[in-house]
Amino acid sequence: MNTLINGAPCDTISVNDRGLLYGDGVFRTLLLKNGKVLQWHRHYQRLFKDCTTLKLTCPPESLLHTELENLVAGSQQGVIKVIITRGLSQRGYVPSHNPVTTRILSLTDLPSYPPSNYDLGVNVHICQIRLGSQPRLAGVKHLNRLENVLASAEWSDPAIAEGLLLDELDNVIEGVRSNIFMVKDGELLTPDLSRCGVSGVQRERLIEWAAQQGVNCKIKDIQLAELFEADEIFLVNSVIGLWPVHKIGEQYSCDNHPVAKVIQDWLLNENN
Amino acid sequence: MNTLINGAPCDTISVNDRGLLYGDGVFRTLLLKNGKVLQWHRHYQRLFKDCTTLKLTCPPESLLHTELENLVAGSQQGVIKVIITRGLSQRGYVPSHNPVTTRILSLTDLPSYPPSNYDLGVNVHICQIRLGSQPRLAGVKHLNRLENVLASAEWSDPAIAEGLLLDELDNVIEGVRSNIFMVKDGELLTPDLSRCGVSGVQRERLIEWAAQQGVNCKIKDIQLAELFEADEIFLVNSVIGLWPVHKIGEQYSCDNHPVAKVIQDWLLNENN
Repeated sequence: MNTLINGAPCDTISVNDRGLLYGDGVFRTLLLKNGKVLQWHRHYQRLFKDCTTLKLTCPPESLLHTELENLVAGSQQGVIKVIITRGLSQRGYVPSHNPVTTRILSLTDLPSYPPSNYDLGVNVHICQIRLGSQPRLAGVKHLNRLENVLASAEWSDPAIAEGLLLDELDNVIEGVRSNIFMVKDGELLTPDLSRCGVSGVQRERLIEWAAQQGVNCKIKDIQLAELFEADEIFLVNSVIGLWPVHKIGEQYSCDNHPVAKVIQDWLLNENN
Repeated sequence: MNTLINGAPCDTISVNDRGLLYGDGVFRTLLLKNGKVLQWHRHYQRLFKDCTTLKLTCPPESLLHTELENLVAGSQQGVIKVIITRGLSQRGYVPSHNPVTTRILSLTDLPSYPPSNYDLGVNVHICQIRLGSQPRLAGVKHLNRLENVLASAEWSDPAIAEGLLLDELDNVIEGVRSNIFMVKDGELLTPDLSRCGVSGVQRERLIEWAAQQGVNCKIKDIQLAELFEADEIFLVNSVIGLWPVHKIGEQYSCDNHPVAKVIQDWLLNENN
């Protein structure tokens, strides 16, 4: 792993950093492909928005971009994680008035996924843990991720590639590490994330793509029972791109993903 | 600040520690008084229980105790924080099967509070942010504390010593950094923490004290309107001990705290 902290090579942070003490920070996960950081500007916009939600001062885009260029220099591919924390703690939970944020940029190897994840699609486990409702943090990719950790620990079967997260009211929210879309009668539907969930960059790209293509994309509450009526379901994030959903437990199965395939190709095109 | 990590003097952790990446860990805050770590065994029991809830292997009590003794050697008073994280990340949210936990012990100066906090009582702000419901994490003192951070940022008036946290249904849950009790008609009442909130050691001591004294202590949902009907209200945690509540916004005021005073003296007696 290659890491820069506040621009300098380093792989440790203070035990007094609020990122550790309280999970008081935000992050993004980006793809490095052919030596290029994909969708950087979009990721920065989300980072800025998430910082604003937490009343954190986001570092300037140009500074982070310069540091990213230094981080990936000489590398062709990998996964980049950008973490911004509220910096050192002054006294308890109270944020200081002028926090000096900590910038952590790291580059790791690209994971390899089975080709069938992209072609046939993946099997999905319905997680028992339900996401709590917290409108003040909903959509934000913050460092309080214990729900995702507990959800990830629910299965060990390597044939299951992702977990499906619902809220307490049986609304579908997202995958443990992805956003979810369903196709029904030529329309796209994706869950409303105003009470919980993480709003990812690929979800945002896809919503814009639909608008440009004249495809109706509804953002709404989707009950689990409604999801099972989908013509197609797929998962997106910045590292995996798009995985069609082959099976969800014993309750949903789909072998044919024509819409997902079109979007998969489009999302993987780094020039979009 | 004096810090030990895994027993050795050190004040940094890996940026790959799951405590930072996901808030994947638990903590306790303890008081050092007259050279003695107060209520150690109780804190360890809570730490163990919280680790178990997160499927974390809690370090042995004897190991932590030895490290605590090394940490505080030569010091008479201070605040000790014990953090246990799931250690280094292997791949994404999925916990490894045999995680090597990280133990972080730190000692900081004892904060000084106005004597009136103990005598007249404190003014309390009703926080706008509502605690989300997450039964799987309720009661656990984990590192996902963004709700507390956002709550703490809601006021800057130094005359306000604590914030009151409610859930979405107007149930009183706790203070931002304390547990809450009310006295009504000779009984104690404290909120049920099965959906959210942190179960502190002083709360537990007090519930046991009540049982020993033959005082009825009910653990139940308490609506904000019911709280305002209290004869007395008080806040407890391991660092402050007990603060009576003088005022909550404009809606509650109390100048006389006979029950709180009895318990305050008892809680501060380190031999109990």
